[in-house]
Amino acid sequence: MTELLSIILAAGEGTRMKSAVPKVLHPVGGLPVVSHVLRTAKAAGATIAVVVGPNHEAVEAAVTRFEAGAHISKQLDRLGTAHAVQQARAAFEAAKGHVLVLYADNPLITSETIARIVEKLDSGADMVVVGFRPQNPTGYGRLLTRDGQIFAIREHKDATEEERQIGLCNSGIMGFRGDVLRSVIDRIGNKNAKGEYYLTDAVEIAAGDSRKVDFIEADAGELVGVDNRIKLAEAEATFQEFKRNEAMENGATLRDPKSVFFSWDTEIGRDVTIFPNVVFGPGVKIADNVEIRAFCDIEDAVIGEGATIGPFARIRGGAELGPDVHLGNFVEVKKSKIGAGTKAGHLSYLGDAEIGSKTNIGAGTITCNYDGVNKDKTIIGDNAFIGSHASLVAPVRIGNGAYTASGSVITEDVPDDALAFGRARQENKPGYAPKLREKALAKKAAQQAAKGK
Amino acid sequence: MTELLSIILAAGEGTRMKSAVPKVLHPVGGLPVVSHVLRTAKAAGATIAVVVGPNHEAVEAAVTRFEAGAHISKQLDRLGTAHAVQQARAAFEAAKGHVLVLYADNPLITSETIARIVEKLDSGADMVVVGFRPQNPTGYGRLLTRDGQIFAIREHKDATEEERQIGLCNSGIMGFRGDVLRSVIDRIGNKNAKGEYYLTDAVEIAAGDSRKVDFIEADAGELVGVDNRIKLAEAEATFQEFKRNEAMENGATLRDPKSVFFSWDTEIGRDVTIFPNVVFGPGVKIADNVEIRAFCDIEDAVIGEGATIGPFARIRGGAELGPDVHLGNFVEVKKSKIGAGTKAGHLSYLGDAEIGSKTNIGAGTITCNYDGVNKDKTIIGDNAFIGSHASLVAPVRIGNGAYTASGSVITEDVPDDALAFGRARQENKPGYAPKLREKALAKKAAQQAAKGK
Amino acid sequence: MTELLSIILAAGEGTRMKSAVPKVLHPVGGLPVVSHVLRTAKAAGATIAVVVGPNHEAVEAAVTRFEAGAHISKQLDRLGTAHAVQQARAAFEAAKGHVLVLYADNPLITSETIARIVEKLDSGADMVVVGFRPQNPTGYGRLLTRDGQIFAIREHKDATEEERQIGLCNSGIMGFRGDVLRSVIDRIGNKNAKGEYYLTDAVEIAAGDSRKVDFIEADAGELVGVDNRIKLAEAEATFQEFKRNEAMENGATLRDPKSVFFSWDTEIGRDVTIFPNVVFGPGVKIADNVEIRAFCDIEDAVIGEGATIGPFARIRGGAELGPDVHLGNFVEVKKSKIGAGTKAGHLSYLGDAEIGSKTNIGAGTITCNYDGVNKDKTIIGDNAFIGSHASLVAPVRIGNGAYTASGSVITEDVPDDALAFGRARQENKPGYAPKLREKALAKKAAQQAAKGK
Repeated sequence: MTELLSIILAAGEGTRMKSAVPKVLHPVGGLPVVSHVLRTAKAAGATIAVVVGPNHEAVEAAVTRFEAGAHISKQLDRLGTAHAVQQARAAFEAAKGHVLVLYADNPLITSETIARIVEKLDSGADMVVVGFRPQNPTGYGRLLTRDGQIFAIREHKDATEEERQIGLCNSGIMGFRGDVLRSVIDRIGNKNAKGEYYLTDAVEIAAGDSRKVDFIEADAGELVGVDNRIKLAEAEATFQEFKRNEAMENGATLRDPKSVFFSWDTEIGRDVTIFPNVVFGPGVKIADNVEIRAFCDIEDAVIGEGATIGPFARIRGGAELGPDVHLGNFVEVKKSKIGAGTKAGHLSYLGDAEIGSKTNIGAGTITCNYDGVNKDKTIIGDNAFIGSHASLVAPVRIGNGAYTASGSVITEDVPDDALAFGRARQENKPGYAPKLREKALAKKAAQQAAKGK
Repeated sequence: MTELLSIILAAGEGTRMKSAVPKVLHPVGGLPVVSHVLRTAKAAGATIAVVVGPNHEAVEAAVTRFEAGAHISKQLDRLGTAHAVQQARAAFEAAKGHVLVLYADNPLITSETIARIVEKLDSGADMVVVGFRPQNPTGYGRLLTRDGQIFAIREHKDATEEERQIGLCNSGIMGFRGDVLRSVIDRIGNKNAKGEYYLTDAVEIAAGDSRKVDFIEADAGELVGVDNRIKLAEAEATFQEFKRNEAMENGATLRDPKSVFFSWDTEIGRDVTIFPNVVFGPGVKIADNVEIRAFCDIEDAVIGEGATIGPFARIRGGAELGPDVHLGNFVEVKKSKIGAGTKAGHLSYLGDAEIGSKTNIGAGTITCNYDGVNKDKTIIGDNAFIGSHASLVAPVRIGNGAYTASGSVITEDVPDDALAFGRARQENKPGYAPKLREKALAKKAAQQAAKGK
Repeated sequence: MTELLSIILAAGEGTRMKSAVPKVLHPVGGLPVVSHVLRTAKAAGATIAVVVGPNHEAVEAAVTRFEAGAHISKQLDRLGTAHAVQQARAAFEAAKGHVLVLYADNPLITSETIARIVEKLDSGADMVVVGFRPQNPTGYGRLLTRDGQIFAIREHKDATEEERQIGLCNSGIMGFRGDVLRSVIDRIGNKNAKGEYYLTDAVEIAAGDSRKVDFIEADAGELVGVDNRIKLAEAEATFQEFKRNEAMENGATLRDPKSVFFSWDTEIGRDVTIFPNVVFGPGVKIADNVEIRAFCDIEDAVIGEGATIGPFARIRGGAELGPDVHLGNFVEVKKSKIGAGTKAGHLSYLGDAEIGSKTNIGAGTITCNYDGVNKDKTIIGDNAFIGSHASLVAPVRIGNGAYTASGSVITEDVPDDALAFGRARQENKPGYAPKLREKALAKKAAQQAAKGK
């Protein structure tokens, strides 16, 4: 296979995002847009060079985190796309095969599209332009073709009325045979209104050299450019649609697909049922036969087969739920392991806990895992019964088969099979309630009198 | 009125669902798709015969649960739709009137459409085919007509270019005069690529007998076939749109109709306001003038006039809420009766409870209704005041006008008008907090030192 | 600038709403539709006259609340739009400039459209009709023009086939030079099927007087008429789309714009990230760099820079959150002030509280702010640590740097730096749990035996 270098242009300022965060770090499906492009390029077998802008340390860091070996160069002045490519000179001079120019703000480009570019180059094209058909082509450069090859890209403002009828537009994405890129890149000039160097001009130069400039047509949705927050939302929507269909095709039921939100890495098993309004953050794996009811927020969690979750559950922080676990409403699980068949049905917070199997966690149970400085562990055995409204003050260990009485504060370990109490005895004061009410009313009257003064 | 027998074909394997659950048991609007068809056929006055597949005990059970008297037969080998109809021979041989063939995976067929078929049969048609116009007819059989009658159904692959221009396609749903069905069903052959018996062929046989084969045209949305999870989601969406419009036409406000999910049997009164993101499971009746705020999950519940619910409320298990009840955020009510004007505003679990009227349930109240084996009752009178963070350990009874102090564990009955305490006395340790902090910091330092080793 | 009087017709019965609430008081974006029109007319610099129906005291009150100086008149008999305008005679007789007729059930009319009408009147038009192009013009009156001016509005039923081809329809909204309105209004007759006086007829009268009757064309979405609940939902959807785009254009990220609901007055800063499913009630201001996670319900609240909210948070009642506050899941804040950097991560109710900065509110903290009559305050200092499952019984004051032990009921003030305990000591009963289980099983057996009798 011919080697492939992918130069990813990530230097854009993105002022229309109106953000202190560089454009290419805004997330789609929980992953920065630049990382989507890195991921796709890698999946297509490319080595990576990224051109970042000045003051883009955060972009550099994100790239390196995702692909440690990426070649990174800086474009200090923003003098156009060809100028940006030139900054990656060390990478493309050394390239043995093809060179692909991608944009960090096109997060939805697919590896299938890249494969089609490579195939064209492998079978004789010197250069390949990716075209697409936008709903409204006004403003886009048109691909001018003759005998199935491109001889020029005409900017909208320079196009004749006839040329404007052409629907096929320039996406900016291009593939080159390495020697072709090297022969044209420095011949691109800047004699234009803005005085910038445009990669688009490579087409006419190559065509003038009698190079074969081919093209492919890609889906407009795949080429969405994240230039502002509305485009970002569009990219997110397209990405979500892809993930939703993938989950359904794999055998999950999404009662209302449009209200289920996946992250880029969410894994969903077969015969999983997802009710409306479920949000998956990064790092989630759901086994088969799981039911997730409405209004759940799940991230960084593994959920075992047959579990039933929600409605109104929140799971996070590296949680691991075994098979047939049940989490009910208003329950949060953070960084905890929960064994098979254990249930926590109502209004609980389980943080930094290890809970065995077939244990019942009563309504309103709270692991008091934080002392203001440290996070401590709560360890609960199998077949235990935690009475409702328990406060489990970590570090604490509750044994197998142990039982804690409702409303108890548990500060010390409870041995296997022991019953623990930690609550006051009840006392009734007959006939006292009306007195309380009178007192409360008198207080109110006094306050109103005070206000009236 | 002529008698009507409805033969519902439910034997399909549904492998494209990628599910261990038979296709026709997947739910739309909380009801299995086969039950939708049963329900509609019954509403149209039909007696019911269902043809199920091998190993379809669960389908049989669902059918019998919905319609005890249904005639059930099995199609052991899946040899086509005509073969499936033949399995219901005992039913159609005995039929005195018309016979309708429906499909268990067409959950949205309406009784209006059935009535139109019956009307055609009543007024002289021998057979009626239901046609529809799909957006893209490729792959569907076309209805070939002459003088307003059908003489054949042409499969897409066998159709001429001219025939493919016909937009009206075969839905598979057909009505027959009983004697007509009996005269054609056994003459259908299997001389085709798959060697199966197709009910479609009944058209040409009947036309060849000079029978009058008529047709009606139905809406494509009504005829969606639940063959995979994406189609299931489409059927759900169409069903929801119908229910939402129905609710709005009856005088309910849905601020964002697309985010409100009904079940097949949800009943909504007049001047009910529903905020975005509300999910109704089966068995819900909402009286007039109820306000349901965002993020509520309600099933198996009756809600009285003027109640205000949510946001973030969950109601279930046969709950009955009286007029003007208020349930606030993070409140769950399960299998409880709540009297007029009673309020539970925050973070509470009320399970297996009976609560009188004008009682105030403090924030963080939990009925401790489960001892690991039994579910016991909590009974609270009228005009009572349950202080915040109460643990009500069932079985327990709290009288009219009684008052429980905040943070109490109530294990014994509280008489009318009594005040109950069940909490420890507070003790302050002056200046001790900084010491705790130092201790916590020292612990952290020790742990870090231990890690550093 | 010429003076502008806006006569807003609000007398319609709105029977198709099927509501006890007058049509024009139903809300869009949290504001009654009539108030939207008042607001827009005021923004365009108009003085206001409103014509209400009989028994419309609630409408009068809403109008007066929004615009104290509005001229209000009653239309006792509903005899058509011209008759309605006549009821505002005192207002338009005194008008020195132009007169605009608006409808209270067109909540989305923009001040830009009003400005365009005024501009036409200022530059020589005697009368201006607002036209629009509905998707399906059937039923609407068509604007008949000659030489760029209108000579008649033809009702659909009276239109020729050729006239029905005209797409431009009458919205009903009209602007007049004051003297022109005064000269035509009483010459409108009621010789029609319903015997009503239609403002539409003003066109032919004015044209007959050789007045210049001009028109503008407005967007159909802006002219939606709230006549039934489905139209109300449409108006809401259009309004929301406007607000969502506005927020994104100002530099907020909405991961799923369609599931974020704004009120008319919501203010959102830059680099705010809003996850799916967030609902803003009236009175919300969000500073820059705030993150709002999924499933939040926020109304009447100010949220400071850098705060992180949710998922599953509810904020209301004049809450004020300082910079960098964190509210986590299942947390409600009502009418409380929370200082910079304070955290309340889980399952808490903070009502009528004043909390300092850098304080940690443990999971399951509840302010017991209500005694059945009065709402009392909980005051917590800076750098305090409230242990989990605290019940803070108001009125109560917890000092700077103070610490309350987990599971405590705090009924008395805690001095600065003190540690407060308010819980019982734990006691373990070894080996007792199996006995409890046996007892529970025996109880169940006894109950079943009793049922079996």
